[in-house]
Amino acid sequence: MSAIARLLRPRSVAVVGASADPAKMTGRPVGYLQRHGFSGEIWPVNPRAQNIAGLPCFADVAALPAAPDVAIVLLAPDRATEAVRALAARGTSAAIVLASGYGEAGPDGARRQLELREAAGAMRLLGPNTIGLVNLTDRIVLSATGALEAADLPSGGVSLVSQSGGILGALLSRGAARGMGFAKLVSTGNEADLDVSDFVEHLVDDPATRVIALYMEGLRRPGAFRAAALRAAGAGKPIVVFKVGRSASGARAAVSHTGALAGADRMYDALFGQLGVIRATTFDDLLDLPAALVQPRRARGRRIAILTSTGGAGALLADAFGLAGFEVPMPDGATTARMAALLGSDPQEPIGNPVDVTLAGVRPDVFKGAIEALLESPEYDALAVVVGSSALAQPAIAAGAIAEGQARSQKPIVAYVSPHAPEIVALLNRQGVIALTAPEACASVLAVLAAPAAAVVAPSEPVAHDPLAALPAGSLNEADSKALFARFGLPVVQEGSAATPDAAQAIAERIGGELVLKILSNAILHKSDVGGVRVGVPAAEIASAARDMLTQVRAATGIEPEGLLVQQRVRGGVELILGLIRDPQLGTGVLLGMGGVASELMGDSVVRLLPIGPADAADMIRTLRGYPLLTGWRGAPACDLAALEQAILSFARMGEAIGSRLMEAEINPLFVLPLGRGVVAADGLAVLS
Amino acid sequence: MSAIARLLRPRSVAVVGASADPAKMTGRPVGYLQRHGFSGEIWPVNPRAQNIAGLPCFADVAALPAAPDVAIVLLAPDRATEAVRALAARGTSAAIVLASGYGEAGPDGARRQLELREAAGAMRLLGPNTIGLVNLTDRIVLSATGALEAADLPSGGVSLVSQSGGILGALLSRGAARGMGFAKLVSTGNEADLDVSDFVEHLVDDPATRVIALYMEGLRRPGAFRAAALRAAGAGKPIVVFKVGRSASGARAAVSHTGALAGADRMYDALFGQLGVIRATTFDDLLDLPAALVQPRRARGRRIAILTSTGGAGALLADAFGLAGFEVPMPDGATTARMAALLGSDPQEPIGNPVDVTLAGVRPDVFKGAIEALLESPEYDALAVVVGSSALAQPAIAAGAIAEGQARSQKPIVAYVSPHAPEIVALLNRQGVIALTAPEACASVLAVLAAPAAAVVAPSEPVAHDPLAALPAGSLNEADSKALFARFGLPVVQEGSAATPDAAQAIAERIGGELVLKILSNAILHKSDVGGVRVGVPAAEIASAARDMLTQVRAATGIEPEGLLVQQRVRGGVELILGLIRDPQLGTGVLLGMGGVASELMGDSVVRLLPIGPADAADMIRTLRGYPLLTGWRGAPACDLAALEQAILSFARMGEAIGSRLMEAEINPLFVLPLGRGVVAADGLAVLS
Repeated sequence: MSAIARLLRPRSVAVVGASADPAKMTGRPVGYLQRHGFSGEIWPVNPRAQNIAGLPCFADVAALPAAPDVAIVLLAPDRATEAVRALAARGTSAAIVLASGYGEAGPDGARRQLELREAAGAMRLLGPNTIGLVNLTDRIVLSATGALEAADLPSGGVSLVSQSGGILGALLSRGAARGMGFAKLVSTGNEADLDVSDFVEHLVDDPATRVIALYMEGLRRPGAFRAAALRAAGAGKPIVVFKVGRSASGARAAVSHTGALAGADRMYDALFGQLGVIRATTFDDLLDLPAALVQPRRARGRRIAILTSTGGAGALLADAFGLAGFEVPMPDGATTARMAALLGSDPQEPIGNPVDVTLAGVRPDVFKGAIEALLESPEYDALAVVVGSSALAQPAIAAGAIAEGQARSQKPIVAYVSPHAPEIVALLNRQGVIALTAPEACASVLAVLAAPAAAVVAPSEPVAHDPLAALPAGSLNEADSKALFARFGLPVVQEGSAATPDAAQAIAERIGGELVLKILSNAILHKSDVGGVRVGVPAAEIASAARDMLTQVRAATGIEPEGLLVQQRVRGGVELILGLIRDPQLGTGVLLGMGGVASELMGDSVVRLLPIGPADAADMIRTLRGYPLLTGWRGAPACDLAALEQAILSFARMGEAIGSRLMEAEINPLFVLPLGRGVVAADGLAVLS
Repeated sequence: MSAIARLLRPRSVAVVGASADPAKMTGRPVGYLQRHGFSGEIWPVNPRAQNIAGLPCFADVAALPAAPDVAIVLLAPDRATEAVRALAARGTSAAIVLASGYGEAGPDGARRQLELREAAGAMRLLGPNTIGLVNLTDRIVLSATGALEAADLPSGGVSLVSQSGGILGALLSRGAARGMGFAKLVSTGNEADLDVSDFVEHLVDDPATRVIALYMEGLRRPGAFRAAALRAAGAGKPIVVFKVGRSASGARAAVSHTGALAGADRMYDALFGQLGVIRATTFDDLLDLPAALVQPRRARGRRIAILTSTGGAGALLADAFGLAGFEVPMPDGATTARMAALLGSDPQEPIGNPVDVTLAGVRPDVFKGAIEALLESPEYDALAVVVGSSALAQPAIAAGAIAEGQARSQKPIVAYVSPHAPEIVALLNRQGVIALTAPEACASVLAVLAAPAAAVVAPSEPVAHDPLAALPAGSLNEADSKALFARFGLPVVQEGSAATPDAAQAIAERIGGELVLKILSNAILHKSDVGGVRVGVPAAEIASAARDMLTQVRAATGIEPEGLLVQQRVRGGVELILGLIRDPQLGTGVLLGMGGVASELMGDSVVRLLPIGPADAADMIRTLRGYPLLTGWRGAPACDLAALEQAILSFARMGEAIGSRLMEAEINPLFVLPLGRGVVAADGLAVLS
């Protein structure tokens, strides 16, 4: 049995620093263990008590009858380290340290955390700065969270791993109130040893866990998380994550809270997307989506029937579904006839969708019959049922009818509970019916139930490393940057660099036609701002244009350009941006964006973390809002998308091959030419370390 | 006293069709009137009962002791009309008709609704298809909503007008559960007579109403709504509206629900924006925002302090605030010193924001002291306080400390209640503290409290009508369209139309330089698709280019163009789109959008309803995401925004002057040239009826 398995299911628990006063935080764990039905040994440790909650109390760790499987350490930092050392020496399997004042508390705290980790030696450590863990599958609670005051905590198929103890408590109590059961809940706190990736990895193999929910502030080991998430995808266990840090102030708060490293949120988004991890948009989603995914029904498409007895709530749902891209189509003839028979109405009259059964729907036979008719209609992939105020009088009848209807169908039902009726919500959830109180949540939930399982693929084979020993550190100039890109198979614009205007003239005559003339300089970043770029210069006039340009640039900047660049002028095609971003935490990402001033302003771009494969590249292209511009917009020719895919993959390969030496790389613009004519990099920049 | 005032505060109420069985829907109103404390006369009318709920029952309307102030009609449609006629004859002030089966139920229903309206004569009518109204200020409930089963319905400063009875019940019960009080709640149903605008108009003068919340599916009288909303803005009473119809399926559901006319949702958005009406984004916002606006505190800026005893919830809030554009700045030195004194920590150590007081914050003195210190800091405009699980044990202490801190300050506090703790939420709300359970809601609420009161201006003076008698109905060709625009002062590109290539040549020589050549046709809509547009033709080559073009267009379409258009080629500047949209329900809107293929694809545009003034035009320009392109982006020259403003106003004036004859008008592109050079309409289209 692994140490994590033993931590989640100990036979004996020492509670070090337990208080005899149940009102104190340190008095809670022993009481909670007893109250929630732990059947193993509980050993309180406190030199000043004989007896705690009816159990004999031990003076210190040395006095324990045996090495405990798990110890909960409730001492302050100044005494916790010694206790941990003693527990490790005793052969304890794992310790849970609740105290704060470690990695999250400045350099002194970080030092304390290092000492704590050293004191633990081979013993596994949960925390510090954790509220502990709760195993509801086996009714073992190793936690001080006030949420355990609740008498009735149902067990279920959702497991939660949270980097915040407060969030664990909040979700446990909110879940219990709505009748939602959990399997395991773990607060990983400062993650001095065990971290979120360890627990995801473990929960993939936990038979009681069907969905994994994560509250995350930052990942310490992205590689381990990637591996664990891929295993979860393979096992068909969805992961739903709420990650803070989408804004600068959120990221800062997360860092100061657990001392975790922050990575760029966009890169996390890419990581989650590539792993099939569902990112919760709102905090409520972090309960709503797992609660929905834990039941086995999935929608085969996006056509929703809405059954209501109150028109307003039906309209709310129809609007929310429409906004989320669902269809709310009219019932077919057979379904209309069945509904008319139920309602005693004219079968020639369209009944619409939402299907508004008005007050007649209060009759259980009508309500049940309508649920059946709509679920059995081949026109619909899922059913949304409004529970109105009329159900308040007899909640069990409404809930029973929905549960019964659902049992006969493979299609998912979401129940939208319109009035304040927490008991109906709990009743429905306990019967396995998804019950929600926000119309927007009904749409979010069906969106994940209707999404095809993500085609998650393991990374492709590694690319041979290319140390680029010949290249110096720093910014490469435009010509050198493009030469580097060309080495990795990226088509670059026909061009030549020249030291003098006369040499530029010779290059111009070789290329011919209308040309682009630029200065070459790695000291001047915005060449066009200082007159260092001219587009559409006839080949014959290059030398004189170059002389004028050099004079102007020297006057504007006082900098002597390194030389001149003469380029073929690219005509036609669509401008894109292709870039590499290095994140100190998550590694390298490749960015594809629409180019041109207007599009850049709109921020239309997409990021994927390396490594990527052809499917990723194709998906990146399709994800751009500007994608229609590439497929023949308003009579323009369709672009060479195959060549664009290849360019993305070549660029990504370059990122992998060069590795961490490549700090930054960008092609802007990359022209995507009409079908069969490929792509061409017209300008670029690379920065090496 | 107006009929609406009397309807909301009757001295006598007849309940026609009252049942003696309180379990029946028709048995509820009499019971609810009694239970919630109505002190006037209640007259049940039912020929088959002697006595209902201890009150003498009357056989029919004629038998009533006097004309009632209000009658609640509980009869089915087949009998309701006669009852309404009898009530009107008796001199009843207003009747409330609950039955459905009218305007929302096809042509037969619409006919029944017309009959009902006629039967009412001078008597005012609420409904049909309404759940009635609830006046909690005066404890008068004229409704059958099941939400009235609740024993304790607090009164307060928020009034609700809802076009759905089910939504009224849902909001009443949800509000009561969180300790939120209402003044008046009215369900307007099918609005055969009294509509949402009537009640908004009335509530502006209702002393008990401080905020007006609206659930809306469509407006029958936009002009009346505009006038009422302007009065509300003048009286300082915010209006918050949740309107369905943002998606096609939602709009369809709304129409079939109440039979209201749908207008384009974008036009509603424009209407609300111009009137300072706050549009709720989520359904929860429809309670959260009014509950926040009803308390008098406003934020003077966007700098938020976050106080928490649990790091995770603090990070949630910091992230939500950051995403909503708030700042979460560090405390100043004085505040840091105060906090250090409270917590006994080192005053040299930064305390951060969120201010995490950890477990020390459980002590009431520390918690209170921290609230005071943060509210008094000049660095902050508002405070968000996390109520964590530790407050569950002693809710009154946490709630009391927050309420006390708030009482000493003019700054708003929002309390984020992290665990499931409905009793704490209700307690806080009853004490006047904004208490919320979603981090995103905390940000939405502070966003409205921090927003400057909208500068709502009454429409400008009317524009003289110009019937355009000389112009025929139908699409005008490009030259005629631009001539029309020029009549209203819009600068159009220098151009001339010609019947033959030789005539075109003469025009070309007069304009000179590089030109644009197009066919003229009001039968061919997409001229460039059929070779009917060439850009950059030298003046000398126009005749031959025109001959080629005519041949090509005839071959492609079989249509003989009406002529040719020779235009000056516009260089430089930024392309925009300026359009007029007619909505059958809401009137005419003016649309300003970024032009060019890429921007069009991004859908970057803004709409305002006519009439508009200079402030609106300036605001439209600034609202575009592409606005930076107009102000000198990346070294480009700044554009002539004053001329653009004038163009928008001229276009709008044209819309007002021509009125409903102008079905459609668009300038695309409108070139906005560098400062001092104005704007120029390069292409355009107008459609007249």
